[in-house]
Amino acid sequence: MRKEYTVGIDVGGTTTKFGIVDNSGHILAQDRIPTNEHEVVEEFIDDLYDKLFPMIEKVGGPSKFRGIGMGAPNGNIYTGTIEYAPNLKWKGIIPIAELIEKKFGLTTKLTNDANAAAMGEMMYGCARNMKHFITITLGTGVGSGIVIDGKMVVGHDGFAGELGHTIIRPGGRMHKSTGMAGSLEAYASATGVRETAIQMLTEHPEQESLLQNYTINELTSETVYECALQGDTIANDIFEFTGQILGESLANFIMFSSPEAIVLFGGLTKAGDLLLKPTRKYMEANLLPIFQNKVKLLFSELKEADAAILGASALVDA
Amino acid sequence: MRKEYTVGIDVGGTTTKFGIVDNSGHILAQDRIPTNEHEVVEEFIDDLYDKLFPMIEKVGGPSKFRGIGMGAPNGNIYTGTIEYAPNLKWKGIIPIAELIEKKFGLTTKLTNDANAAAMGEMMYGCARNMKHFITITLGTGVGSGIVIDGKMVVGHDGFAGELGHTIIRPGGRMHKSTGMAGSLEAYASATGVRETAIQMLTEHPEQESLLQNYTINELTSETVYECALQGDTIANDIFEFTGQILGESLANFIMFSSPEAIVLFGGLTKAGDLLLKPTRKYMEANLLPIFQNKVKLLFSELKEADAAILGASALVDA
Repeated sequence: MRKEYTVGIDVGGTTTKFGIVDNSGHILAQDRIPTNEHEVVEEFIDDLYDKLFPMIEKVGGPSKFRGIGMGAPNGNIYTGTIEYAPNLKWKGIIPIAELIEKKFGLTTKLTNDANAAAMGEMMYGCARNMKHFITITLGTGVGSGIVIDGKMVVGHDGFAGELGHTIIRPGGRMHKSTGMAGSLEAYASATGVRETAIQMLTEHPEQESLLQNYTINELTSETVYECALQGDTIANDIFEFTGQILGESLANFIMFSSPEAIVLFGGLTKAGDLLLKPTRKYMEANLLPIFQNKVKLLFSELKEADAAILGASALVDA
Repeated sequence: MRKEYTVGIDVGGTTTKFGIVDNSGHILAQDRIPTNEHEVVEEFIDDLYDKLFPMIEKVGGPSKFRGIGMGAPNGNIYTGTIEYAPNLKWKGIIPIAELIEKKFGLTTKLTNDANAAAMGEMMYGCARNMKHFITITLGTGVGSGIVIDGKMVVGHDGFAGELGHTIIRPGGRMHKSTGMAGSLEAYASATGVRETAIQMLTEHPEQESLLQNYTINELTSETVYECALQGDTIANDIFEFTGQILGESLANFIMFSSPEAIVLFGGLTKAGDLLLKPTRKYMEANLLPIFQNKVKLLFSELKEADAAILGASALVDA
């Protein structure tokens, strides 16, 4: 008989979320721990074990589980290792799947965090009946998962789908972690929106803006959003510019794999139409006619944490 | 018993090449006709028939043939139609597979011309044992074919893989046929190299260059190549710049699908190391560390016309 449960773990740069998932795709229990408070991965796993193992015990213990699925930055599906993740403290190559497997006594599979979210979207979200789509996570960074012919694109080495690091403004804004100039992530992330705000306010000191009432530490994508809602010109210009960069990038991605839809996730999507309208405008304007007015631009219906946990858990049976 | 032959047809913007292919992948006979001398597609097909049908008869007639495979700009594998091809005179949607099938009495399959070349490369060229690669054709324009997990990427509508039209210099050089600004094709094609030459000579009239001995009509990618070989600074700068644009674009493509190799085809590859060295340099410089020094950058071993004919003919059995 098929065992009843799987575990889904989503390792993020700041927080790691995890949950118990049943065979119908319901998350029975979930919790979280901080990721980057642990200098060594073993301590992180000890901390994870202390919270997660009691949850496993509560539903009947490891014998009820088919395994653990995990999404993590630079997670490699072929090797089960996290390799040189710029946003994590653990440097080099971390054999995390093996370490978790030993600790919990459960088969553990790993993939890229954004790929896990895309799998969640394909199994339980708005891409349920789609065979060709791309998910873009607009959070602290920009992640992506690409599905072609119903299959996750992982490439020859397991690392495909790093669309946040593609260059859209050659010679442009420096990305602090990667040292690369002009990548999508440098602009279309929460961090990027904050940088655009600081840049626009610095370049136009003469122009009045509600954003001038905030200290530099208070300037976040959320404050920009609030000021934009109140009709602030600079705040609106910031979303227009962010949507332009994102839309141009999406056009390039569409001309690569011609997906049916692009599904947007993550904190920045709370901006709704403020972001969606310019994104769609610049996306369409940069497409060859054969691609225009064909590709759906959607916001995910899933809660971000749920999508990642569900997607990671689905790895167990993949 | 399996019929012995297939026909491969490669419709290019200027010339259409075709050949008879046997079961071992040998081209027994081949010929060509001009493409754009025919205002209507029916005249083009009549002309093709006059040359190709005698070749078919010579090896035993249509009963010896399994079918016709065809590559064409904006050729759609799902519908057998050429749709809104900017470089062809036939506008709108052209049901070319159906028209050829009626004329020749042989099952006809169509795909994008660059995809046909990639299939040829996968079956008979330097990508023979690869499951993940991208081919880029650097000719009058820039074409591309993408293979993931051993399968051609065609997308949800058949049009995937238009990498020549991705934007690498937003707001940059205008592309005359598409009206788009800053696409790869506007720079890294034979046409693009000529434009870069004119631009550099205009911007630096004070700098001596062998290229100044040519009339504007004589400035071609070939003359730039010849001058570069003689040590001309501007001519070398032109290839350096072309390689920069191409290398930056290839880095973006690699971060999408993480291929094992990129195979370059077409007229511009005659420039050899003059193009390859800067391309590789800028490609590596724009990759995340996890992708660096992993991806082979190769020149095709096949003659371009052969690859396209062989790839198109392989469609018959796909």
